[in-house]
Amino acid sequence: MRQDKTIRSEMGWSTADKIVVRGMDLVNEVIGKVALGDMAWLEINGTLPTPQQSVLFNALMVTLVEHGMTPNAIATRMTYLGAPEALNAAVAAGLCGMGTVFVGTAEGSARIMQEALKDVEQPDLKSIAARIVADLRARKSSVPGIGHPIHKPIDPRTPRLFQLAKENGYYGRYCELIQLIAAEAERVSGKVLPVNATGAIGAVASELGLDWRICRGIAVMGRAIGLVGHIAEEIRNPIAINIWERLNEETSAHLRPKSGNRPNE
Amino acid sequence: MRQDKTIRSEMGWSTADKIVVRGMDLVNEVIGKVALGDMAWLEINGTLPTPQQSVLFNALMVTLVEHGMTPNAIATRMTYLGAPEALNAAVAAGLCGMGTVFVGTAEGSARIMQEALKDVEQPDLKSIAARIVADLRARKSSVPGIGHPIHKPIDPRTPRLFQLAKENGYYGRYCELIQLIAAEAERVSGKVLPVNATGAIGAVASELGLDWRICRGIAVMGRAIGLVGHIAEEIRNPIAINIWERLNEETSAHLRPKSGNRPNE
Amino acid sequence: MRQDKTIRSEMGWSTADKIVVRGMDLVNEVIGKVALGDMAWLEINGTLPTPQQSVLFNALMVTLVEHGMTPNAIATRMTYLGAPEALNAAVAAGLCGMGTVFVGTAEGSARIMQEALKDVEQPDLKSIAARIVADLRARKSSVPGIGHPIHKPIDPRTPRLFQLAKENGYYGRYCELIQLIAAEAERVSGKVLPVNATGAIGAVASELGLDWRICRGIAVMGRAIGLVGHIAEEIRNPIAINIWERLNEETSAHLRPKSGNRPNE
Amino acid sequence: MRQDKTIRSEMGWSTADKIVVRGMDLVNEVIGKVALGDMAWLEINGTLPTPQQSVLFNALMVTLVEHGMTPNAIATRMTYLGAPEALNAAVAAGLCGMGTVFVGTAEGSARIMQEALKDVEQPDLKSIAARIVADLRARKSSVPGIGHPIHKPIDPRTPRLFQLAKENGYYGRYCELIQLIAAEAERVSGKVLPVNATGAIGAVASELGLDWRICRGIAVMGRAIGLVGHIAEEIRNPIAINIWERLNEETSAHLRPKSGNRPNE
Repeated sequence: MRQDKTIRSEMGWSTADKIVVRGMDLVNEVIGKVALGDMAWLEINGTLPTPQQSVLFNALMVTLVEHGMTPNAIATRMTYLGAPEALNAAVAAGLCGMGTVFVGTAEGSARIMQEALKDVEQPDLKSIAARIVADLRARKSSVPGIGHPIHKPIDPRTPRLFQLAKENGYYGRYCELIQLIAAEAERVSGKVLPVNATGAIGAVASELGLDWRICRGIAVMGRAIGLVGHIAEEIRNPIAINIWERLNEETSAHLRPKSGNRPNE
Repeated sequence: MRQDKTIRSEMGWSTADKIVVRGMDLVNEVIGKVALGDMAWLEINGTLPTPQQSVLFNALMVTLVEHGMTPNAIATRMTYLGAPEALNAAVAAGLCGMGTVFVGTAEGSARIMQEALKDVEQPDLKSIAARIVADLRARKSSVPGIGHPIHKPIDPRTPRLFQLAKENGYYGRYCELIQLIAAEAERVSGKVLPVNATGAIGAVASELGLDWRICRGIAVMGRAIGLVGHIAEEIRNPIAINIWERLNEETSAHLRPKSGNRPNE
Repeated sequence: MRQDKTIRSEMGWSTADKIVVRGMDLVNEVIGKVALGDMAWLEINGTLPTPQQSVLFNALMVTLVEHGMTPNAIATRMTYLGAPEALNAAVAAGLCGMGTVFVGTAEGSARIMQEALKDVEQPDLKSIAARIVADLRARKSSVPGIGHPIHKPIDPRTPRLFQLAKENGYYGRYCELIQLIAAEAERVSGKVLPVNATGAIGAVASELGLDWRICRGIAVMGRAIGLVGHIAEEIRNPIAINIWERLNEETSAHLRPKSGNRPNE
Repeated sequence: MRQDKTIRSEMGWSTADKIVVRGMDLVNEVIGKVALGDMAWLEINGTLPTPQQSVLFNALMVTLVEHGMTPNAIATRMTYLGAPEALNAAVAAGLCGMGTVFVGTAEGSARIMQEALKDVEQPDLKSIAARIVADLRARKSSVPGIGHPIHKPIDPRTPRLFQLAKENGYYGRYCELIQLIAAEAERVSGKVLPVNATGAIGAVASELGLDWRICRGIAVMGRAIGLVGHIAEEIRNPIAINIWERLNEETSAHLRPKSGNRPNE
């Protein structure tokens, strides 16, 4: 019966004078010794990263920390405006929008490649790329991880991430496959479709052995930091109230009487 | 020992052919018979409302459903832009900002009044109002539930809610006290400080017997509906992408090179 | 240029003494006159519902308000435990989990039917059902809106919703189609796959003219109310702390030293 | 007029071939060169940290990443169970509960100290501590940043953080003041009230020059990473479904008929 089955977790435990996280003594082995990015690797994988894994994993995470006044940064600032006592909820609001339109494609590109290469000893990457693109086109789905409205003909983050993968011994068949997918998609569509940052992240994360289902987490960990950064700027130089007042006035100007007062909440 | 104590809830249960919510048969007693606002009362109080309670409780909830392009409406729209597959998360993002600045004062005004009148048989409301205002001023706290940047000298929602309270037999000492508090605050500050909508909601909710700790929920239930309304408009007439692009360009124009391309995510 | 295009919304506006929502005067036409469920219709559709639409739309919304100790109710209670000052964020946390596993299928079933019947004058519903099921099976996707782990051989909510649709003049081709889809899926799979509550909601919402993209909102508006109900119970009878302490102890018991103290946050 | 005022942000900008974050070239100066923890400093402060600042700031952030099966970890797992397609929303749900009960005290302790020491050249720390404790007691408020239900008589994280502050040249009057506050609170209350981890974080963050209003962000950035870790474990070894089923059964067992089926969503 369900109730009798013990539910277990390996994440951590503590007593009065000791806290253990992923098998390591927090006070004596982690604080002051393990940097935040390596801690993220420890949390996900259960061991500290090698120096090469550390460089590469940190590189993936910093790539998406900040991209200016994005929709999720605006959501975070609007939320902070209404509830400055809950910085945590303001970051949460910003994370809610990290979906299929803007960052989910790291998950998607890692998924199609990990599923295609699973249990395949000596894959013919070119054939696999062709089949992936054909399948997605048959379903009228776009190919995740390629193409960008602005960063073209190449996304400048991609060659940098692949270069780091090479330098650290993690440039393998996933990195090759995503590029073959992009080339095939360009061939059959006639469009310019470079491997974009999330495609590169999906490929390199796969090289690092990360399950595709956790790949969106790379962006989430990074952007959570970026959203705290936006709140820090909002504290120094508040702009959320101006954004709100302006949008409120503009969006309802055609509705309100000519002599109307300024709007309010 | 903790493990041995059974954890119980009275909210509901179900079997293959039956679903019971708050003691009522969902299929035969609720669906098609109980309207949404009365269902909210049932959820919170465990019984269906009387006709008078129903009118008044629905009035409280509809008051804050919609107030135009508020910060939380903007947050919801920004979130939906990035994750249209998760309407639920977009509403969640909007709710995150319903804090102390914009809607928390229903909670606050209900609290100060419920604490002041607790176990008091025949309260001297005028003295209590004076003490509440003096205490808050001594702590340099503002008085929750009074004053409004725009809706002055009166907030038009307040007399309507008090009128409904009278018509339905729920105009009592909380409604009187909040008005005495406003009068006292006006007297000692010299400012125009009418009872605002959240102050009126806090008072009427207290008359209805609601714990001050649940009063923010009145606004939350209403605004969740309003935020779905904003998404419905966003589906018909998308404006979030324009808001984002415009803000992205404007906020970074001073940083980017003169010949810079348009920004991107 | 983008900046020059005015951004407009029809949701509402206000001045010092007036608040207008969806074209109606909040104080004189809405508060005390429009119940919460009808307000939801107004928000989404821009007009008040007919009596028939009101009965049916309220029925859809109340169906999913409460289902006992669901995962999102647990998430809301855990969040409230850590941040009781932010009831709004606790409801938001619960809404975040209303995804593809538990409630997203209203959206999915409405989508496949609305796309299949779009611009079709005299549809052959049986052929359409067969094609929908065949297409989904070819993609190895499950059919949204049918089947239930517990409520079988029928989901008791479904016949009640269809009965109400008939009584109110909204039983049409969507209600028929979802049943033909279920029958076809049962035929080809050999499994028991009744139309479930979200399938029925997707069908009836389609009859009411709601865009499939807003259908998840029906569940979201309802469940937001249910989650406030769970917080109200948590205030009366706190159980979240017991749930946490018990789970913390159980999940880490195998890790901690035999003489270990109780865990902590 | 409001519309004419340009709204500016210094966070970042991009063109087709370039992305700039906080004044640094993302591709050439950040990716592969700046680790995640230092990126967090850059986001908040606009410059890269010194080696000393880096050690200390990373130490503060890793302290709260993981603490086992906390309420927010449970909330995240419950949310992921219902919406595995939205890892971002599951992390958001967990963050929503980082409020006054569990992590807000870093903000609170930093606030009381920063306000007390503002513009004070040669503070008498002992008198200030006495006044802070007396003021809070007069308001019946607890003293933020001291005391712990389990980690006593000392919180083991605190001496480690102070040691690192000393080693890196950031042990100053805030670190001293929080300890004087704890000593005074112990003296007047007769209870064991050590400086806890959030108190130490609040003090060290103040030494590093961080505004008290951003201090909760230290915990938020760390815990966002920890919550991704919990989802990674949930992917490897799903336990959320067992937690839900067990709680659902237990909480409603007293309500359901003796021969009742298992519950459902």
